[in-house]
Amino acid sequence: MPVAVEDVLAGNRLALARLLSQIENDTAEGRQILNELFPHSGQAALIGVTGAPGTGKSSLVNQIAYHYRHPADGRQPKRVAVVAVDPSSPFSGGAVLGDRIRMHSLSGDPDVFIRSMASRGSLGGLARATAGLVQAFDAAGFEIILIETVGAGQAEVEIARLAHTTLVVEAPGLGDDVQAIKAGILEIADILVVNKADRPGVEQTERALRGMLQLAHPGKRQYHHGRLISAPEPEEKPLNEPEWVPPIQRTVATEGNGVSELLALIDQHRDYLKQTGELARREAARLTAEVDLLVEAGLVDRWRRGLANGWYQEVLARVMNREISPRQAAAKLTASKREEG
Amino acid sequence: MPVAVEDVLAGNRLALARLLSQIENDTAEGRQILNELFPHSGQAALIGVTGAPGTGKSSLVNQIAYHYRHPADGRQPKRVAVVAVDPSSPFSGGAVLGDRIRMHSLSGDPDVFIRSMASRGSLGGLARATAGLVQAFDAAGFEIILIETVGAGQAEVEIARLAHTTLVVEAPGLGDDVQAIKAGILEIADILVVNKADRPGVEQTERALRGMLQLAHPGKRQYHHGRLISAPEPEEKPLNEPEWVPPIQRTVATEGNGVSELLALIDQHRDYLKQTGELARREAARLTAEVDLLVEAGLVDRWRRGLANGWYQEVLARVMNREISPRQAAAKLTASKREEG
Repeated sequence: MPVAVEDVLAGNRLALARLLSQIENDTAEGRQILNELFPHSGQAALIGVTGAPGTGKSSLVNQIAYHYRHPADGRQPKRVAVVAVDPSSPFSGGAVLGDRIRMHSLSGDPDVFIRSMASRGSLGGLARATAGLVQAFDAAGFEIILIETVGAGQAEVEIARLAHTTLVVEAPGLGDDVQAIKAGILEIADILVVNKADRPGVEQTERALRGMLQLAHPGKRQYHHGRLISAPEPEEKPLNEPEWVPPIQRTVATEGNGVSELLALIDQHRDYLKQTGELARREAARLTAEVDLLVEAGLVDRWRRGLANGWYQEVLARVMNREISPRQAAAKLTASKREEG
Repeated sequence: MPVAVEDVLAGNRLALARLLSQIENDTAEGRQILNELFPHSGQAALIGVTGAPGTGKSSLVNQIAYHYRHPADGRQPKRVAVVAVDPSSPFSGGAVLGDRIRMHSLSGDPDVFIRSMASRGSLGGLARATAGLVQAFDAAGFEIILIETVGAGQAEVEIARLAHTTLVVEAPGLGDDVQAIKAGILEIADILVVNKADRPGVEQTERALRGMLQLAHPGKRQYHHGRLISAPEPEEKPLNEPEWVPPIQRTVATEGNGVSELLALIDQHRDYLKQTGELARREAARLTAEVDLLVEAGLVDRWRRGLANGWYQEVLARVMNREISPRQAAAKLTASKREEG
C-alpha cells in the first residue's frame, strides 16, 4: 500500500512508520515522498546526543524525551521523535532490541515516536538515511528530534552534523582513553553532560572537562552546573556579540536528576542560535552536507552503470597482480571515454 | 627535498618519514611514489587492532610490537610498523601526544616505526591515507604492520577492512552499552582479546563473549585461552574444510601477560588464511575497497572542477529556501550537461 503524503503531514503514525521503512530501504517511493515533504520541514529543533559507550546515553535520551512530554514548569508538552543510530552494528539487528527496552517508559504516548537504525552498509548510506528520517519526522510535525548515536568516532561526528544542538555525554570512571576522545569531541559539543553523576570520580571528570574547555576557549565565560562562574574582561567579549561556551551539566538519568536543568540549557542554546544567526548557518551547513552526500552517491551510481562489462574486473585483476597501483586503477576506471561508454 | 623511491625501499627512515607526510598530505609527489612502490608491496602481515575506549588498546599494541621484536622462543625478530588512527579526533592534534607516550618502550629500535594519524577531514580521506601508509611500510620491508584504531564504530570497521587479521579488544567492566557494540564488532573479529584481565568481572566479560560467539557460530569449535574446548560433530565440519572460530585470549598488557599466546594465535590465523585461500580473498577485498575509495574521490573531484561558476551556490540557495529538496538539488548538480561543462 503506497504512503500518502497527506497522511504523513497529518501525523498518521502508520503512514509515518511505513515511510520510515521506505527511507531506510532507500526505495523510489520513499525518495519521491521525501521530495514532497521537504518544503514542510524546517520547524523542528534537532538535538544530537553522542558519547562513548557506558555513559548511559540511551537512558538520558529517554529522560529528555519524557521531560519534553511532561514539562515541570507548566509549559506546553512537545511532540518528540528519537532517531537512534548505531554505526557500530553494521551487520546485526541489535538496535531492534534497544527499541523494545526503551519504549517502556514512553509507550502508549502517541506524540512520541522512536526509531532505531543499525547501519546497513556504508557510513554515507547511514548518514543519508538518518537525514531522511529526520526530514520525515520534521515534516510530520515533531517539534523535538533527538538524534542519538552510539560511540564517539568519526561516524558520530558526521551524524552530529545533522543536529542544531549537540550534547556530548560523559560519565565518571570510563578509563584511560576517554581523555583522547574528549579532545576531538569537545569541538562538536554545545552542551557537555556528565551522566551517572552519583558515581565516584564525578568531580575529577568535570574538572578535566572544564580544563579542556578552558584550553579551547581561553578567557571566555565558564559555567558551573549551567550557571556562569567566570566572565572575561569586557574588551575580550563585546556585549553585542554573544558567545557560547559549552556548559557542563550533571545528570543521573536513571533517577531523572538534572534533566530539567539540561532542557533549560538546550532551550538557551536554541535561543542563542536564533539570536546570533547561527541557526541559519548551521541549517545551511547541514543541508549542504546532505546535498554533497547525495551528489557523491549519485556520481558513483552513474559511474557504475556506465562501466563497460568486465572492465572493472579486468582492471582489478591487474591490481591484484601488482602491475598497477590502486590509484592508477582508479584513474583508468574513471577515464572519460569509459565513463561515457 | 624530493623522496627517492630507492631510499624508501632500502629502509631509509628519514626518506620513509618524509614519504609518510607526503601521503598524509595527499601530495602529487606522495601519490607518484606510492604508484612506484606498489609493485614492491604485498609481503607484510596486516593486523588490525580495534575496540572501545578504555580497553587499553595502545598498551596492547606496544606489547605486541615489543614481542615481535623480542620473540620468546628464539625465532627471528620481525620489523614492525604501527599505524595508529584516531578517527575520533577530527580536529585536534591529540594523536601526537600518544606518539610520545608510546615510543618510550620501543624507542631507539631502528626496526620499529610508529606513526599516529588523526583525521583531517572525511572518513574516506582517512581510510585512503591509512591505506597509503600501510603500502609504504609494506614496500619498505616492514613484516608486521599493526593498524590501531580508537573506538568501535563504523569508521573502525571501515579501517579494519584494511587488515588481514583483526583483533577486537575488550576489557571487564566498561558499562552497559558494551554489549551492543560487541554484537556488531564480533563479525569483524578474528581474535577476541580480553585485556585488563586482572580486573574483576573478567569471567563475566569472557562468558558474554563466548555466548555471543556460540550464537554467531552454532556448532562450531569453541576455544578457551586459545585451546579448543568443544568441537562439532564430524558431519557438520568436514575435515578438509577448516573453519576459524574467533578464539578469546586474556591479556594484561601493562604486565605483558598473555601477549606471547596472542602472537601464537595471530600466527595460527595467518596460517589458516593461507591454507584456505582466504588470504588471497581478503587481499582482493582490501584492494577493491581501496580502488573504490579512490574512484569515489576522483569522481567527486572531477565533478567539482566541472561545476559552472556559481551554479552550486544557486542550487543550494533554493534548498535553503525549501523550494527543492536536497535530492532534487543533487540531481540538478550532477545533470550531465553541467558536469561536462
